[in-house]
Amino acid sequence: MIDLYTWKTPNGRKPVIALEALQLDYVVHPVDINRDEQFLPNFVAVSPNSKIPAIVDRENGMKLFESGAILQYLAEKTGKLLPTRGATRYSTLQWLNWQVGGVGPMFGQLGFFANRAKERLPLAVNRYLTESNRLLDVLEQRLSQSAYVGSDDYSIADIAIYPWVVAVITNNPALLADARANRPSMDRWMTKLAELPDVIKGMNVLQEAGVS
Amino acid sequence: MIDLYTWKTPNGRKPVIALEALQLDYVVHPVDINRDEQFLPNFVAVSPNSKIPAIVDRENGMKLFESGAILQYLAEKTGKLLPTRGATRYSTLQWLNWQVGGVGPMFGQLGFFANRAKERLPLAVNRYLTESNRLLDVLEQRLSQSAYVGSDDYSIADIAIYPWVVAVITNNPALLADARANRPSMDRWMTKLAELPDVIKGMNVLQEAGVS
Ligand SMILES: N[C@@H](CCC(=O)N[C@@H](CS)C(=O)NCC(=O)O)C(=O)O
Ligand SMILES: N[C@@H](CCC(=O)N[C@@H](CS)C(=O)NCC(=O)O)C(=O)O
Repeated sequence: MIDLYTWKTPNGRKPVIALEALQLDYVVHPVDINRDEQFLPNFVAVSPNSKIPAIVDRENGMKLFESGAILQYLAEKTGKLLPTRGATRYSTLQWLNWQVGGVGPMFGQLGFFANRAKERLPLAVNRYLTESNRLLDVLEQRLSQSAYVGSDDYSIADIAIYPWVVAVITNNPALLADARANRPSMDRWMTKLAELPDVIKGMNVLQEAGVS
Repeated sequence: MIDLYTWKTPNGRKPVIALEALQLDYVVHPVDINRDEQFLPNFVAVSPNSKIPAIVDRENGMKLFESGAILQYLAEKTGKLLPTRGATRYSTLQWLNWQVGGVGPMFGQLGFFANRAKERLPLAVNRYLTESNRLLDVLEQRLSQSAYVGSDDYSIADIAIYPWVVAVITNNPALLADARANRPSMDRWMTKLAELPDVIKGMNVLQEAGVS
């Protein structure tokens, strides 16, 4: 049984998709970051960096934060969604790291300066819009050569990247209006992922009536 | 033999430290990002995301970009600097991801807005200064409980984090004047790492006369 501390954000959805895909038992504990619950002592004891998501695995008592580490832990626990050796293992980890170090932070900064900042700062908006478009182009190019991002198999790299691509396009409808239309391989991949039951569950985490 | 494509930046230093610590044979190929060499076709063929570092392992022909994936690959190739199982494995990967997804991007944005941006934007400088200080506090707290960041053993987590902490303090002498003095555990860890031969080699990569 896995205790999952999370919220309805791209990083928060990733472990739900993985837990569903791996058919592991879990309980969701909401951490409302709009109410600063990530700073409450009970949560900080699990996640000293005060960010969601985090997990506790009741089987061994292990606490873990950072979505990339959580995805790798769940994959290695079950022997699925990440090859155990060889070139496809490291290609998958490479694209997982690309999401954690590039896509997540840069799409996140675009969201802040385009939609939430108290001042309109064109230099900052342009910086992150340019980088977000560049990252989407890198993804398009990768998906023109490979069925999924890490390799030809569905993996934790897809699980990490998909919620962020959905979020950046949804949250910036004017700035990224043609993002999918201009990237046919990415569009094909998004359509395929959107239909997976584990992805549907993950994308809807904590969206049920009464939880938000 | 590993071909390493890199430059004298925090991310570029990490694989050098690891290659030295693991005593692997390697050749450094400079990619001068100040001259946009990361966009040259020969490099993009290895690193389609157009960022350093990247490697090619001549033993198996594998190409790899993203420093976090490179560090993990080198550690798993040799069975060193990352436990193969158990809580310390995932703690190490957790802190590695914390660097890739938090420390690197946030210290990097502070560097841009505090030192390189064409306009002075206090909102942006404050955003990244606050987050950088928070991340340094998280590191201090971790190092008050543990000899190294991932566990009580030196690991790829230390190798990933150290060059970034040195860079953020060195590049922001006014903004982060008391960063070390206020964080005694981090200071102790920095002093210890600064003396390691592999760290000295990595921090000085491409600094020899004639290469810059
Ligand atoms: N690199 C981290 C990023 C986690 C992260 O940024 N989480 C956000 C929500 S998507 C959060 O908790 N924000 C609250 C805060 O920053 O205070 C991961 O991948 O887990
Ligand atoms: N997440 C990547 C980040 C790599 C990165 O940002 N590299 C910088 C130098 S430290 C770079 O190549 N910059 C050139 C550019 O962005 O065009 C990693 O850890 O390898």
